[in-house]
Amino acid sequence: MHGAIRARVAGAMAVELHHLDRPDFDRDFRARLYALLAWRRDVRRFKRDPLPDGTVERLIETACLAPSVGLSEPWRFVIVNDSARRAEIRRSFEHCNREALEQQTGDRSALYARLKLAGLDDAPCQISVFCDHATAQGHGLGRLTMPETLDYSVVIAIHTLWLTARAEGIGLGWVSILDPARVKEILEVPVDWTFIGHLCIGYPEEDSDTPALQRQGWERRHPAAGTVIHR
Amino acid sequence: MHGAIRARVAGAMAVELHHLDRPDFDRDFRARLYALLAWRRDVRRFKRDPLPDGTVERLIETACLAPSVGLSEPWRFVIVNDSARRAEIRRSFEHCNREALEQQTGDRSALYARLKLAGLDDAPCQISVFCDHATAQGHGLGRLTMPETLDYSVVIAIHTLWLTARAEGIGLGWVSILDPARVKEILEVPVDWTFIGHLCIGYPEEDSDTPALQRQGWERRHPAAGTVIHR
Repeated sequence: MHGAIRARVAGAMAVELHHLDRPDFDRDFRARLYALLAWRRDVRRFKRDPLPDGTVERLIETACLAPSVGLSEPWRFVIVNDSARRAEIRRSFEHCNREALEQQTGDRSALYARLKLAGLDDAPCQISVFCDHATAQGHGLGRLTMPETLDYSVVIAIHTLWLTARAEGIGLGWVSILDPARVKEILEVPVDWTFIGHLCIGYPEEDSDTPALQRQGWERRHPAAGTVIHR
Repeated sequence: MHGAIRARVAGAMAVELHHLDRPDFDRDFRARLYALLAWRRDVRRFKRDPLPDGTVERLIETACLAPSVGLSEPWRFVIVNDSARRAEIRRSFEHCNREALEQQTGDRSALYARLKLAGLDDAPCQISVFCDHATAQGHGLGRLTMPETLDYSVVIAIHTLWLTARAEGIGLGWVSILDPARVKEILEVPVDWTFIGHLCIGYPEEDSDTPALQRQGWERRHPAAGTVIHR
């Protein structure tokens, strides 16, 4: 890791941020933020080019700006570089994917098989993300009736990392077709950690403002108005 | 609702977006995005000023750009305006908050009592957000081994709404000290919907780049490096 470079980048960020003081987000920024949200994809096809040194650490640092219940910061990032462990994760994916395929029928099954669901082979960076349910940080605030909010905090950290990466032209694919218990075994993480998601990160083969599943005819987006009721 | 205004705003957005084509996010945008993440707060103290007509609908439309497992879009937004239902939600919060308080001891308990945990009294807008576990959309893709990814999709939609709101100077507070079963009763939502979070939305009394819980001495942020391991 090039700690010095990272510190410089983070320092430059901090200076710019300091200059902003109470930031004023103008119309131009809001349009670009909208574009970022519209062009964020769940990437499956990656180039094999490595990420510049320090990139992953910087993305994780930004992810830690996410909100967390009671300021518990329960996210735990496991950077997976070991090729044997990567191969085991891939095997778990194949196993789970086969089972999922058996539940699909007819045309949809064929389509499902064609969908390239994992960037596990090509993405230069893989991070498995967990939630530490044993953390004392936050003193349990806000999660007595809804302990799942601890997991939700980690999900938002992943989304924060996702957006930050996309703003740098880096793609992320979230792999959920995995057996959580098996992933914990493979990565030898503490027993109190809950598996949230396995992330493939790297430069995408292509950009698009349309979800891959829509382009491939699997499913399409529906109007937002259909998701709203009044009470 | 001023549908015409909303359509105009959305239309203007769409045009700007179209002009961006494959958007290039430069250094200035990335610094502002970082500032947005740093200045996003879990807001508890709101001004009572109403939001401009159409704002909520526009925020929800943008929230629907969130990723969802299998493109299932399982988010369901319940806009709560009825004062009787709002009062019932407030009662559920008070009840759960009292129980939580009894679990805290000594100084921490006193501090806990002082924390103003809900903007339920002042925020002009309240949205309860649910996950529809009965949706056929997405055909079950990606959630056989991890059905919780359906809930995670809704969490990311909330985070998307949160960031979009903040970019407009609008604050959001996520209330989790509630009994999910009771919230479902109060709002009379379908049985297959899971309660994810109750959102208070409005103009914040103040802006800050430091979490309220840290300013109040409840908990502090920890260095990101402590959340990372290598495998």
